[in-house]
Amino acid sequence: MKARVHVMLKNGVLDPQGEAVRHALGTLGFEGVNGVRQGKVIELDLAETDPEAARAQVARMCETLLANTVIESYTVEIA
Amino acid sequence: MKARVHVMLKNGVLDPQGEAVRHALGTLGFEGVNGVRQGKVIELDLAETDPEAARAQVARMCETLLANTVIESYTVEIA
Repeated sequence: MKARVHVMLKNGVLDPQGEAVRHALGTLGFEGVNGVRQGKVIELDLAETDPEAARAQVARMCETLLANTVIESYTVEIA
Repeated sequence: MKARVHVMLKNGVLDPQGEAVRHALGTLGFEGVNGVRQGKVIELDLAETDPEAARAQVARMCETLLANTVIESYTVEIA
């Protein structure tokens, strides 16, 4: 079973990577870019076959390792 | 208009970040993790209002800045 996790900085937390990308896009001549946020995507290949069990397992992974929940939020997609 | 870009290492390209996460999950007691790939997600807030024009603009951004197309592939979602 495949799972995909998105980890993004929470709103209000300064995102220097995103700001750097926004600035670089402007330098390259791309106009109309109002904001950029950069995060991580983690694709997991799990042995678990039950979607709900897989979702719960991945949520535990996020809480313990994949996301810093003080400043980051995460979403889990099971496919 | 919002756009979301996923940038992942191509299949066959060694992913040390993903391997580090897989190993760390095993150390933490998570079993049944067969593989992990880690990539980037970039969320863009664009002034462009036409979906097709926005998609073309973001594809150009990927080709010139956001992805290293030698080793990375990208997907664009417009929302």
